[in-house]
Amino acid sequence: MTSSDLFTPIFVPGAVQDAVSGDAWLRAMLDAEVALAAAEAAEGVIPADAAAAIAAARPDLEGLAVAARDSGNPVVPLVKALRAAAGEWVHHGATSQDILDSAAMLVARRALGPVLDELDGVVGECARLAREHRDTVMAGRTLLQQAQPVTFGLKAAGWLAGVAGARARLRMLRAELPAQLGGAAGTLSALGDRGPAVLERFASELGLVAPALPWHGDRRPVAELGAALAVAAGAVEKVALDVVLLAQTEVGEVAEASGGGRGGSSAMPHKRNPVGAVRARAAARSVRAAAGVLLEAMAGEHERAAGAWHSEWPALSDALAGTGGAAWSLHEALAGLTVDPERMRANMTDVMSGETTGAAGTFVDRALELE
Amino acid sequence: MTSSDLFTPIFVPGAVQDAVSGDAWLRAMLDAEVALAAAEAAEGVIPADAAAAIAAARPDLEGLAVAARDSGNPVVPLVKALRAAAGEWVHHGATSQDILDSAAMLVARRALGPVLDELDGVVGECARLAREHRDTVMAGRTLLQQAQPVTFGLKAAGWLAGVAGARARLRMLRAELPAQLGGAAGTLSALGDRGPAVLERFASELGLVAPALPWHGDRRPVAELGAALAVAAGAVEKVALDVVLLAQTEVGEVAEASGGGRGGSSAMPHKRNPVGAVRARAAARSVRAAAGVLLEAMAGEHERAAGAWHSEWPALSDALAGTGGAAWSLHEALAGLTVDPERMRANMTDVMSGETTGAAGTFVDRALELE
Amino acid sequence: MTSSDLFTPIFVPGAVQDAVSGDAWLRAMLDAEVALAAAEAAEGVIPADAAAAIAAARPDLEGLAVAARDSGNPVVPLVKALRAAAGEWVHHGATSQDILDSAAMLVARRALGPVLDELDGVVGECARLAREHRDTVMAGRTLLQQAQPVTFGLKAAGWLAGVAGARARLRMLRAELPAQLGGAAGTLSALGDRGPAVLERFASELGLVAPALPWHGDRRPVAELGAALAVAAGAVEKVALDVVLLAQTEVGEVAEASGGGRGGSSAMPHKRNPVGAVRARAAARSVRAAAGVLLEAMAGEHERAAGAWHSEWPALSDALAGTGGAAWSLHEALAGLTVDPERMRANMTDVMSGETTGAAGTFVDRALELE
Amino acid sequence: MTSSDLFTPIFVPGAVQDAVSGDAWLRAMLDAEVALAAAEAAEGVIPADAAAAIAAARPDLEGLAVAARDSGNPVVPLVKALRAAAGEWVHHGATSQDILDSAAMLVARRALGPVLDELDGVVGECARLAREHRDTVMAGRTLLQQAQPVTFGLKAAGWLAGVAGARARLRMLRAELPAQLGGAAGTLSALGDRGPAVLERFASELGLVAPALPWHGDRRPVAELGAALAVAAGAVEKVALDVVLLAQTEVGEVAEASGGGRGGSSAMPHKRNPVGAVRARAAARSVRAAAGVLLEAMAGEHERAAGAWHSEWPALSDALAGTGGAAWSLHEALAGLTVDPERMRANMTDVMSGETTGAAGTFVDRALELE
Repeated sequence: MTSSDLFTPIFVPGAVQDAVSGDAWLRAMLDAEVALAAAEAAEGVIPADAAAAIAAARPDLEGLAVAARDSGNPVVPLVKALRAAAGEWVHHGATSQDILDSAAMLVARRALGPVLDELDGVVGECARLAREHRDTVMAGRTLLQQAQPVTFGLKAAGWLAGVAGARARLRMLRAELPAQLGGAAGTLSALGDRGPAVLERFASELGLVAPALPWHGDRRPVAELGAALAVAAGAVEKVALDVVLLAQTEVGEVAEASGGGRGGSSAMPHKRNPVGAVRARAAARSVRAAAGVLLEAMAGEHERAAGAWHSEWPALSDALAGTGGAAWSLHEALAGLTVDPERMRANMTDVMSGETTGAAGTFVDRALELE
Repeated sequence: MTSSDLFTPIFVPGAVQDAVSGDAWLRAMLDAEVALAAAEAAEGVIPADAAAAIAAARPDLEGLAVAARDSGNPVVPLVKALRAAAGEWVHHGATSQDILDSAAMLVARRALGPVLDELDGVVGECARLAREHRDTVMAGRTLLQQAQPVTFGLKAAGWLAGVAGARARLRMLRAELPAQLGGAAGTLSALGDRGPAVLERFASELGLVAPALPWHGDRRPVAELGAALAVAAGAVEKVALDVVLLAQTEVGEVAEASGGGRGGSSAMPHKRNPVGAVRARAAARSVRAAAGVLLEAMAGEHERAAGAWHSEWPALSDALAGTGGAAWSLHEALAGLTVDPERMRANMTDVMSGETTGAAGTFVDRALELE
Repeated sequence: MTSSDLFTPIFVPGAVQDAVSGDAWLRAMLDAEVALAAAEAAEGVIPADAAAAIAAARPDLEGLAVAARDSGNPVVPLVKALRAAAGEWVHHGATSQDILDSAAMLVARRALGPVLDELDGVVGECARLAREHRDTVMAGRTLLQQAQPVTFGLKAAGWLAGVAGARARLRMLRAELPAQLGGAAGTLSALGDRGPAVLERFASELGLVAPALPWHGDRRPVAELGAALAVAAGAVEKVALDVVLLAQTEVGEVAEASGGGRGGSSAMPHKRNPVGAVRARAAARSVRAAAGVLLEAMAGEHERAAGAWHSEWPALSDALAGTGGAAWSLHEALAGLTVDPERMRANMTDVMSGETTGAAGTFVDRALELE
Repeated sequence: MTSSDLFTPIFVPGAVQDAVSGDAWLRAMLDAEVALAAAEAAEGVIPADAAAAIAAARPDLEGLAVAARDSGNPVVPLVKALRAAAGEWVHHGATSQDILDSAAMLVARRALGPVLDELDGVVGECARLAREHRDTVMAGRTLLQQAQPVTFGLKAAGWLAGVAGARARLRMLRAELPAQLGGAAGTLSALGDRGPAVLERFASELGLVAPALPWHGDRRPVAELGAALAVAAGAVEKVALDVVLLAQTEVGEVAEASGGGRGGSSAMPHKRNPVGAVRARAAARSVRAAAGVLLEAMAGEHERAAGAWHSEWPALSDALAGTGGAAWSLHEALAGLTVDPERMRANMTDVMSGETTGAAGTFVDRALELE
């Protein structure tokens, strides 16, 4: 058991954990090897029966992670195991980075499924709250001081706009995730004149985009994804912060669901902690840290970085897991949120009496179009 | 003199410094106030002659920065000075954040001009090198070990793809920069039923996009820009790292321009330091740090954050300046780069003899389409 | 299997993985509960046989991590399980944070054992190299240009000084790790007048320092540890970077051990990659990211932070694991390092002929005193 | 005017701005050159009258920053100007990094004066509040939910402990700041057998510690300072966050001083914003970012890093300025803080009735010993 076995389940839902698991990475690497063989067979670079054998192989991956220490990456022992099972045409003309980078894009595409599902959930709940509370007046607060009236619907509309906007960027990036295939140093020299054609087919087999040229030295596919995940986590974190603040004992305008021990404390049975929002905030912070690693990793040496590349694998997993986890916890918080319009009105200080909520309704309606 | 007066000119070109200067911010804030008045006059919210007076005013901004301590932002003393010069219709229905956020977008749009110019310069030089050295064979290096032959053209093509891709994202974001106008808490309540119409006109006056709803609590416009600048700086930094490595005494495959003291040392007159690439690497690091501040600032409290918002202003300036500076220094390095094809060939170890450069030429041609 | 099961073994040695594992955290939490009961029994706050029962209990912790979602921390289900096994005196007067913070300090103290062992290993190898190569002349390089002669001993001495200095700080912090006990809000009110005495005994039972007052809101114990780990990782990373650079094909002054597949490539059997240094660099980057999370977490709300606190647990584990991993990989790299004095001399350019190595030997001797 | 001229005065007090200004850096560099000459003259390495001429010189530093672009650091043009004024013995046997690193330590030592003054001010105010409110009962809040009673004195005592502890670390580091002198590559070869003796005297002249060996490649002096400043900023930020939360309209237990426009808004004259705490929070964030740059800069190439070193100069200035600024703004906030014990009591919910504040008083007394 690693520490992640204790803490990860608190912050990340099972579907997202699975999608970035070691098994998921291994499956993606095997998918990449199978797709490579299929593409090469289709282009006549390797025999068709070699590709069939590779597709049918069930290699023994026991002890692979420890064995990967000697090469510094898990593809070397994986190729060894796969060759033992399916012959020497395995991995023909490719390099470790081709398989691992393509696998990273597969893992990202697959993990973005449940991550986007949770973001959809958040957007849906924000929309519901915006609709239901389109005219629920409450204090607007700037620098945490009451300022002018707003509506809770407008607040939820602002949440919606932020999360939906971040979601749109992730969707766009997900549709652009490129396969990587360059061979030892990016020229595909082992594939003779079939290199570019194999690259096209390889990408197509994997359901990824074929890049104009190999991107072993151009880490934007990873870094832009990291940045977009950090933006999405930030949009989620903003909502979670507002929920925590509205749920304060002295404010009491919203409360997360309780019952069955949810939101409980080991010392204070009376407490009703905003535990979903709290978990979301913690998870979001891990995404920013991981995104920082990915951005730093852009500056890698020549045709393959000596360390920066290696730092991407766990960081990308963490960024996906943290974003999915933050969205999941917030989704849960919002779905069970009790809103107290009376308390909202009662909390408003006299200075706001007589003021209107202006264009709040118009803005709510516009935000709902972003759902 | 602040420390930035000593160090900033080393790392940032004058045009970019100017574009993020205090004067540029003040000009942008005044532009926002003038545009607000014009929009409000056009919608009949304030008298036309008030708008004219505001546009014609030349407020006394002496001591504004120190005066801003009491309110925590520079708009409060700016409005005071502008009202003294042009009357009480100044800033009608707006809040500090409307002006400062809109000014931030103006500063960004204006600063992205010279920043993108420098990125264009980098892309252009990469394209030139890719073209000129399409068939210049050199060692490909993975984990800093010689691997297989590549061409210098292919290396430059990879650089081109990275920087051009990051540039495309910045161009897209630049075209989407939104004006901000929400009034005290985001409802535009002081504008009666003219709020949304004023917002449209205000954005149009400023040449910015009118958002669906105010974004005082949705910091994506700032955070996404920060992230995109960090990606651009990372793409630049990768090239700079390669240049530094190729320029090593023991490699000697490229050299930056020297002469007139450029690349010199205080202790060793014989040295020919890759000073442009070195400066670019230093500048790029500051962008990642600033982007981290901007991403963290997404999680702000309610209708205006109590500190996170304030942290954005210098961080946005730093991110723009650092990206522009990194691109400028790299542009200079590449423009003066001496490439030594003989040394490239001589450095190749025997293990690579007989190997080809595969699809390198094809990939170069494809990358050139991204120029 | 989570992604950490695939990647962590590549970068972190087993002993360090174990020391920050979920099991290690659970053991530390149970140790804290047992120590609390023992301290309370000794002070007459709870019955002696209750403490004995708690010490003897073997609670069923199956499913604890998932159960922890409802409360947002693993102590709540752990206390429930422990109470089921040992009665209601379990956790008397304590709060979740008391147990988790004290457990964090225990985990840190225990994990720092193998982490410091690996740092000792690095320091020892640096000392050996400094001694053996006290007079081995090589090119000194500034901005990656040859500058003046140095000795390889002096380079290793500089490495030694950096790592030994960072180690000294970690040793100091390890000796100061404080227990945490404050009860629900930091007053120990449930312990009557025995609170401070129980705190003393509790710390003593755990082998931790008794703090002057509870530190639930003062996160220096965690943040300073994170910062010191980042400094240690940085000192290791500097050495790893130099090793990677010296091992370049064109420099060839050092090489890591090969054979048995070590340093091999999936595409290029001839390669001898500096895999230990590469792994060390990757691991070190993760530490900086984790330290950033810990520093950010200092700013927590009131008597227990709503998210910042929760972000500390995996980040602290990661910082410990990454530092231990970086040191371990570098230790391995240095222990197997082949040094080539002939190549060092041959690489020196003419400009350095006739120059001496000045006080290099004196500085080596001084550095060796830091071993 | 750079953007820092507009924003820096809002967040950083004049004394700290001055201490990290370009002028301060130039003065420190000149001090280092003068100290070097004095040390070399005392050891008979250069003529005594050369040292006197250097000490008396008033070089023309006009345009130095732009001239520094060609070399990538300001020492090269500074030495040129100083040689023009005082002859060729200037900078004898030294390299740019010796001067700039030693200047960095001087700037740090000098700037830590006003930074520590502001931290003293914060500690003093915390102690005053802890004393005055030793028995002022208020709600303790965990996860922003009321939990059990505490005292405001205990809260202030926790603040005190955090800031005083961070201050102690800064004081320790300030007393250990080392001079740097290694010559072109760290051997002091140009000084014959007088190198180590000159280093001792040089450090002594500057009031800095003489290191065992040059630290051009061991960046702990800079990185540890950055980390300690980030911890101090974090300790300040925690207090500022609590102040902002206590000052919320719905809580109202404290308020910052108002009057004369302080805490005012451009849109809402009734507001009383916690502007000092807000500014402190913003300033603290910049410190973490700068510390990240400094930690990353530890991994530099060989005898002088090609970019990492250059990134340290503005980052160190920013870390010092931000910490001083955060402490200054918080000091101001606490010095003018209105505390409302009646509101504290009135805010407490029924669930806390009958509970005591346990050992709060004891803990307050202990914390006061840290003042």
